[in-house]
Amino acid sequence: MRRVAMQIMYDGTDFLGWQRQGSGRTVQEVIETMLSRLCGDRSITIVGAGRTDSGVHAYGQVAHADLGTRYDDDQLLKALQRMSPSDLVIANLSTVDDEFHARYSARRRSYRYRIIRKPDPFLARYAWYLPFELDVNTMNDVALYFRGTHDYTALSKHNPDTPDAVCEVYSAQWHDGGIHLDFHITANRFLYGMVRLLVGVQYDVGRGARGAEEVPEILKSKDRSRQSVAAPTTGLSLIHVDYENSAFQPLY
Amino acid sequence: MRRVAMQIMYDGTDFLGWQRQGSGRTVQEVIETMLSRLCGDRSITIVGAGRTDSGVHAYGQVAHADLGTRYDDDQLLKALQRMSPSDLVIANLSTVDDEFHARYSARRRSYRYRIIRKPDPFLARYAWYLPFELDVNTMNDVALYFRGTHDYTALSKHNPDTPDAVCEVYSAQWHDGGIHLDFHITANRFLYGMVRLLVGVQYDVGRGARGAEEVPEILKSKDRSRQSVAAPTTGLSLIHVDYENSAFQPLY
Repeated sequence: MRRVAMQIMYDGTDFLGWQRQGSGRTVQEVIETMLSRLCGDRSITIVGAGRTDSGVHAYGQVAHADLGTRYDDDQLLKALQRMSPSDLVIANLSTVDDEFHARYSARRRSYRYRIIRKPDPFLARYAWYLPFELDVNTMNDVALYFRGTHDYTALSKHNPDTPDAVCEVYSAQWHDGGIHLDFHITANRFLYGMVRLLVGVQYDVGRGARGAEEVPEILKSKDRSRQSVAAPTTGLSLIHVDYENSAFQPLY
Repeated sequence: MRRVAMQIMYDGTDFLGWQRQGSGRTVQEVIETMLSRLCGDRSITIVGAGRTDSGVHAYGQVAHADLGTRYDDDQLLKALQRMSPSDLVIANLSTVDDEFHARYSARRRSYRYRIIRKPDPFLARYAWYLPFELDVNTMNDVALYFRGTHDYTALSKHNPDTPDAVCEVYSAQWHDGGIHLDFHITANRFLYGMVRLLVGVQYDVGRGARGAEEVPEILKSKDRSRQSVAAPTTGLSLIHVDYENSAFQPLY
């Protein structure tokens, strides 16, 4: 047995999220099924860095698994790439130390939320189409409130498994690239629904429906009734997961 | 009644091609249904510049229709954009002269065929994934054979409606952009299956399965049994249709 780590890219549109469920196509289930076939049909469990929701995409998801197989890393990667459906790619795979844990060893996670202002059938699966004027400068002022260590109870969905809602946000900003308006955020951890709720409240400020000064008050209140509507999942992508000590180096 | 011309973009993956059929979702049927609703449920027929196959995409498809409606061009465009499904966008619309005909007035059509060499879940719907070494220089030598006026019987599918197979190809070349390897071709007309068969034979030359010098012989032979396998529809996009005298100006 050895532990391998993988970097995984997927178009989340046709997956019911990361986590294996009773039924339905999930990223975890598709990868576990492939690995089982490559390991003599033994049952395999993989652990992911983040449990992305239904419809959320990933460029740099990371997972680990303990495998008993004669294949070396390169053979395993090539075999997985041959078996993968077209909306899922194992981009990278390597044997790691037994102490490596895709979830607990992760130090930082980066997400991107993408908005488009012109309708585009080739971007519709990967962005939120908003044909409205948005005040991006003020949205960037709001993004500054998110930096640092805050309790994100008010801007997350209820999750009984995570009683502690304190996150350390290292960077949060909007980048207007013309075709794409992207919100980039990096933190030590993210709570359930958090990025989509942060985008939702910034969108409300950007279109003038709420004042920028409300945002720090909402955060302090820890009151979920003050949330804006969460932005839709289509625009959200897990871009990168950072590990300490070069334990595993994703390609992106 | 007035004649309007439209530029249409679509992700062809979930359409059974352009042309209305007895059943099944086609681009023509979706647009005709929207226009009928906007014109008091009268039956509307639209005429497209090119009948793209099932799975083929379009950035610059053009169609015309004769409409009886009080909406002006801008209101009509906005209404269509609100009604359109996310994989279809009416990018542009304007009233044109009654002599304008989306198919017969078109002077040049440009297609792009896209190949990717690395697997990518976000490009899989829009490209042909080929993880093989390809000799792009020799493929560009082959592309030169296609320029000028030739009978394309040998490199098209049989179509009883088009007995004449002579096409004038204005440009044909490969462009290697790193992530994308694109074949761009512009001609006065294209025959059924033609671009995918041109890409198929160039792929066979590029991977060393056929000699470049065979290609002009195949063309001259008018013998369909000498075709290579057609490249899959995923990689093909109708990029642009050119009209004389500025009759209608697509945005792209």
